[in-house]
Amino acid sequence: MPDALSIVVVETDRDRAFMIVDGLRDAGEFDIQVISEPSGLARQIQMRDPDVVLIDIANPSRDVLEELTLASGPKDRPVAMFVDRSEDGMTAAAVEAGVSAYVVDGLQAARLKPVLDAAIARFRLFQRMRTELAETKRALEERKVIDRAKGMVMKARGIGEDEAYALLRKAAMDQNKRVAEVAQALVTAAGLLA
Amino acid sequence: MPDALSIVVVETDRDRAFMIVDGLRDAGEFDIQVISEPSGLARQIQMRDPDVVLIDIANPSRDVLEELTLASGPKDRPVAMFVDRSEDGMTAAAVEAGVSAYVVDGLQAARLKPVLDAAIARFRLFQRMRTELAETKRALEERKVIDRAKGMVMKARGIGEDEAYALLRKAAMDQNKRVAEVAQALVTAAGLLA
Repeated sequence: MPDALSIVVVETDRDRAFMIVDGLRDAGEFDIQVISEPSGLARQIQMRDPDVVLIDIANPSRDVLEELTLASGPKDRPVAMFVDRSEDGMTAAAVEAGVSAYVVDGLQAARLKPVLDAAIARFRLFQRMRTELAETKRALEERKVIDRAKGMVMKARGIGEDEAYALLRKAAMDQNKRVAEVAQALVTAAGLLA
Repeated sequence: MPDALSIVVVETDRDRAFMIVDGLRDAGEFDIQVISEPSGLARQIQMRDPDVVLIDIANPSRDVLEELTLASGPKDRPVAMFVDRSEDGMTAAAVEAGVSAYVVDGLQAARLKPVLDAAIARFRLFQRMRTELAETKRALEERKVIDRAKGMVMKARGIGEDEAYALLRKAAMDQNKRVAEVAQALVTAAGLLA
């Protein structure tokens, strides 16, 4: 690892904050920052842009849990959340919202590191799948628009598929664009002119 | 919930098995089966086909962990794994392999239910993404093959895109098949005849 992992710890209770920071220091080399005043939390976290967020909250209401979750940006970085108690359904809600580790009644110094490890591994796994899904969706969308454009060129010029695609590709190269972009421009233009 | 959640507990230690079963009974209504002899584990679990698998193993070697993980079928159902200690990197390996909850040094009766809740929620979230990814990939593949078939029909008959697609669709309806299947058959046939 080139740099120490940077961790933002969100903890309003002073004693627990000390325990967490000590526990983390014992477990490895981390760059730790504590946020003890959670007003404007989203901005505070975004500004610090840590590798991982660790939130400890004794007994959150559903609303507070939801706010904390959103503020921590669980789609942008791994978030590990420790709660003392959790109503039925709140675990599922936190997981659905993207919290990478949700630990009920398990805040102990020795368990911080393994929970962070799991949160980071899970976040990466999930992120990889999300990227693959986004790319596949984009490929499908691009394919659709390229096909439409190709069909239009074929019809307009009375030429075959390969030739139509070659024309699109040439236009893209000439304009230093991607074929999908040229195709999209063509489809849009045809819509305007029709 | 129509039926009680069925749980297979994999636990070779008798005392810990009792503790787990008692803990689960206190936490809700579950249909619990204990596997105390993990030989042929994969088959044992498959046969029982539980809603969730809970594995407790004091201090697994990397090999044992990997075997247990594979045997539990973490892609088919949520798997929650409790270990007492975990070498560096084993958490990440378990998560990568699909274990939905990996808990180090956290086996306590009161924590079983929240861990299972998290494992189930995470498994569902993941499963949903995997399904969406598989469907998007399939749509992309089908689109490719339909486009190839369409291009062949257009060329062979000297007709436009819409007409070619209409022909494919009619053939599919006549044979009570999907357009993608007819397209695939056409592409395959053309490959054989060319």
